[in-house]
Amino acid sequence: MHPLVAEYIGTSLLILIGAGVVANVILEGTKGQGGGWIVITTAWGLGVFIGVVVAGPYSGAHLNPAVSVGLALAGQFEWASVLPYCLMQLLGAITGSTLVWIMHKDHFDLTPNPGTKLGVFATAPAIRNYPINMVSEVIGTFVLIFVILYFTPAAMGDEKNTPVGLGSLGAIPVAFLVWGIGLALGGTTGYAINPARDLGPRVAHWLLPIKGKGHSDWAYSWVPVFGPLLGAALAAFTFMFIKV
Amino acid sequence: MHPLVAEYIGTSLLILIGAGVVANVILEGTKGQGGGWIVITTAWGLGVFIGVVVAGPYSGAHLNPAVSVGLALAGQFEWASVLPYCLMQLLGAITGSTLVWIMHKDHFDLTPNPGTKLGVFATAPAIRNYPINMVSEVIGTFVLIFVILYFTPAAMGDEKNTPVGLGSLGAIPVAFLVWGIGLALGGTTGYAINPARDLGPRVAHWLLPIKGKGHSDWAYSWVPVFGPLLGAALAAFTFMFIKV
Amino acid sequence: MHPLVAEYIGTSLLILIGAGVVANVILEGTKGQGGGWIVITTAWGLGVFIGVVVAGPYSGAHLNPAVSVGLALAGQFEWASVLPYCLMQLLGAITGSTLVWIMHKDHFDLTPNPGTKLGVFATAPAIRNYPINMVSEVIGTFVLIFVILYFTPAAMGDEKNTPVGLGSLGAIPVAFLVWGIGLALGGTTGYAINPARDLGPRVAHWLLPIKGKGHSDWAYSWVPVFGPLLGAALAAFTFMFIKV
Amino acid sequence: MHPLVAEYIGTSLLILIGAGVVANVILEGTKGQGGGWIVITTAWGLGVFIGVVVAGPYSGAHLNPAVSVGLALAGQFEWASVLPYCLMQLLGAITGSTLVWIMHKDHFDLTPNPGTKLGVFATAPAIRNYPINMVSEVIGTFVLIFVILYFTPAAMGDEKNTPVGLGSLGAIPVAFLVWGIGLALGGTTGYAINPARDLGPRVAHWLLPIKGKGHSDWAYSWVPVFGPLLGAALAAFTFMFIKV
Repeated sequence: MHPLVAEYIGTSLLILIGAGVVANVILEGTKGQGGGWIVITTAWGLGVFIGVVVAGPYSGAHLNPAVSVGLALAGQFEWASVLPYCLMQLLGAITGSTLVWIMHKDHFDLTPNPGTKLGVFATAPAIRNYPINMVSEVIGTFVLIFVILYFTPAAMGDEKNTPVGLGSLGAIPVAFLVWGIGLALGGTTGYAINPARDLGPRVAHWLLPIKGKGHSDWAYSWVPVFGPLLGAALAAFTFMFIKV
Repeated sequence: MHPLVAEYIGTSLLILIGAGVVANVILEGTKGQGGGWIVITTAWGLGVFIGVVVAGPYSGAHLNPAVSVGLALAGQFEWASVLPYCLMQLLGAITGSTLVWIMHKDHFDLTPNPGTKLGVFATAPAIRNYPINMVSEVIGTFVLIFVILYFTPAAMGDEKNTPVGLGSLGAIPVAFLVWGIGLALGGTTGYAINPARDLGPRVAHWLLPIKGKGHSDWAYSWVPVFGPLLGAALAAFTFMFIKV
Repeated sequence: MHPLVAEYIGTSLLILIGAGVVANVILEGTKGQGGGWIVITTAWGLGVFIGVVVAGPYSGAHLNPAVSVGLALAGQFEWASVLPYCLMQLLGAITGSTLVWIMHKDHFDLTPNPGTKLGVFATAPAIRNYPINMVSEVIGTFVLIFVILYFTPAAMGDEKNTPVGLGSLGAIPVAFLVWGIGLALGGTTGYAINPARDLGPRVAHWLLPIKGKGHSDWAYSWVPVFGPLLGAALAAFTFMFIKV
Repeated sequence: MHPLVAEYIGTSLLILIGAGVVANVILEGTKGQGGGWIVITTAWGLGVFIGVVVAGPYSGAHLNPAVSVGLALAGQFEWASVLPYCLMQLLGAITGSTLVWIMHKDHFDLTPNPGTKLGVFATAPAIRNYPINMVSEVIGTFVLIFVILYFTPAAMGDEKNTPVGLGSLGAIPVAFLVWGIGLALGGTTGYAINPARDLGPRVAHWLLPIKGKGHSDWAYSWVPVFGPLLGAALAAFTFMFIKV
């Protein structure tokens, strides 16, 4: 599988699971309605697991522009591939969230609040305060990228770099990492920690003919893009500073 | 153990755990009543784990006609074995759900709603809309089969194909996959994603002398059979298209 | 470590965690009060994990008379060791539940209901019906013992029998097995599935000077002893019948 | 990475996740508010996982003075390093909890109760009774240190000591251990089981200009310091007594 196809499919699966669980928990009439934070965060962790299992051996399973940029800054990924990777991640996120909308269409129609409809696609801060929201995304993504840089190769699902062949089990550490970040650091902004995760579905929300939808909250949209990129840069620099 | 016996026992265990957790959460008076979506989906994931640990080394642990058909379409399973596998899966599902009924008999009697009684056995859509319900089952099963096709051999519990002997740990990835699908994509139709999981217990519900039971909702029964099969076919074709 | 010491310590740890989580969820004023079925079942699974990590390499980590009897019936454990193992398991269960009482003493005093106090120690059926309660314990323990018989050696934490050294990770499968049984099959009788787990703490409840305690419900006490033993026997015979 | 830097960073990450999840669950207006005991304990387990993944290969990932002292008493860690390790753990805990305060600043302001604000930083007993609170911390930490002493080397994330290279998966056992202790034994005192985890954030609470904060409850502060150290000593002596 071509690395760009792997990034597209892996991110589609990640967002299908991730936006899917939010739909299940917050839309009206679903079987998981009101399932709470444990349901949301566990599924996002498992969405990462699923995306990494599929894409890991082919693209390294970034599934996140912050990962691509962070690894490039740390000298572990070629800069020329960063933009193509990011584009495919964005397309994947649009695809995944569109599928979530299609399969939950009747539940979208049953849900009156336009903000809830948007919440399936994009993150929104619990308390709107751009500088502090930015700090939240920076810290959450710092942890994501910093820890990934300390993972052994197998932890991104790259079987070829694994000494003894852990197989698909190798994708568990990155899933547990995202599970932990979500549980602990996701309560303020909903932990985008991934520009594609937020921007892709926001574009989908803006384009799709969702009945009764409101605005796509573009005013906030730059926070979950630049916060994660800044967090990734800080993580890469810290990692390199320590290594020196 | 003969592969057909393995499929029968593995599916019995899967449905014993899966129908069991639904009984525990939705019937009156149980200790897990109202435990919510995290309880249901975690147990279904672990039910897959348990079934795969037992059946994996003997039959490859399909436990699901969609897996058998998907693997056959992808050229990884002989067509001649598909029908026998499916029959044993169906018999296993009938057995497992019958055991659940026996051990929860007093709780069935305490539960007045016939729809709740049926809910222990078969899935039902949150909002009845056959085409969209079909889409839900297609998408959920697509993810299941597509990701399984990318698993390393150990991930279906087949110790013989494992380079270093992960043993029973090898069954964790498929359990995590089903856990994630349930949490995220199960809120619309209850994620059958397995024709035997739905049809077997529905037959059991229809045959068993359950006090105060209502109809077995045969009108919906084709969705969790053909949706998963269609999803499996799409997954196999997509997998082969990418591999080309 | 002598195998009998390992069984004593491993079962003490198992019951310290298992009775501990019940105390945390059902007694008045604790931080986990009302945490629900997911809290209880996850901790019991992790209690097995902890007990198996410590005892596995020394005794095989039975921690349960049903395991000792089941393995003996299947020819995988010498009969002469069954009684000593069971005695140490019983002593361990008394020790673990006594520690839980000591550390939760103020919460016991705050909890008026004698039945709730007993619930920290011993299981009680949701609906009292001895034959069906017996069936519940038989089925739950059947799954436990039957699946353990299919585990690879590492799954009981026995590092020496592991081909590649999974180390403490090897104890995860048996923890996941107990987690799944609890979530799905524990709603009727509280899943003793282990005579020592129920009888040991019941003896502790009977002996300890617990303020405001009621009777120790000896009328029910035989169910979680003989149900698990019968389930273990059925599992061993089924396993051997299939192997033939 | 120098071992002391590893202890500092690892403990910062542990407390960032640990104090973070408490903030998310107990402060006003967060997305995880009221998420309950399963959310808190799962995140603490994963916080340990994350800290151990990063620090394990460099410092052995103690992240806890009770671990350093326990290992030193058991002859597995040089005494000369204990004090420097503990200081870095304390500094890390101060850093992690300060970051939690910064990113949750608006939620701190929204939360009127000073005790809740303190609860993000330091533990407090459910029922104040110093001797019994002490017993809780002793028992919880005994389990932590005793089981760690039985772990295989890989379980503290030390890849170099791992026979087959489990990589980051090796950090899972210690995470599961802390998850289980939290679920079962954390209901009385909030399971500090780590002097740095409690004292560091308590110092941060005392120093930081938190709006509307109350006292830092220094009267209780010695329990989560000396309880864990006593528990660690008992665990080390028990371990050595059994080994003799």
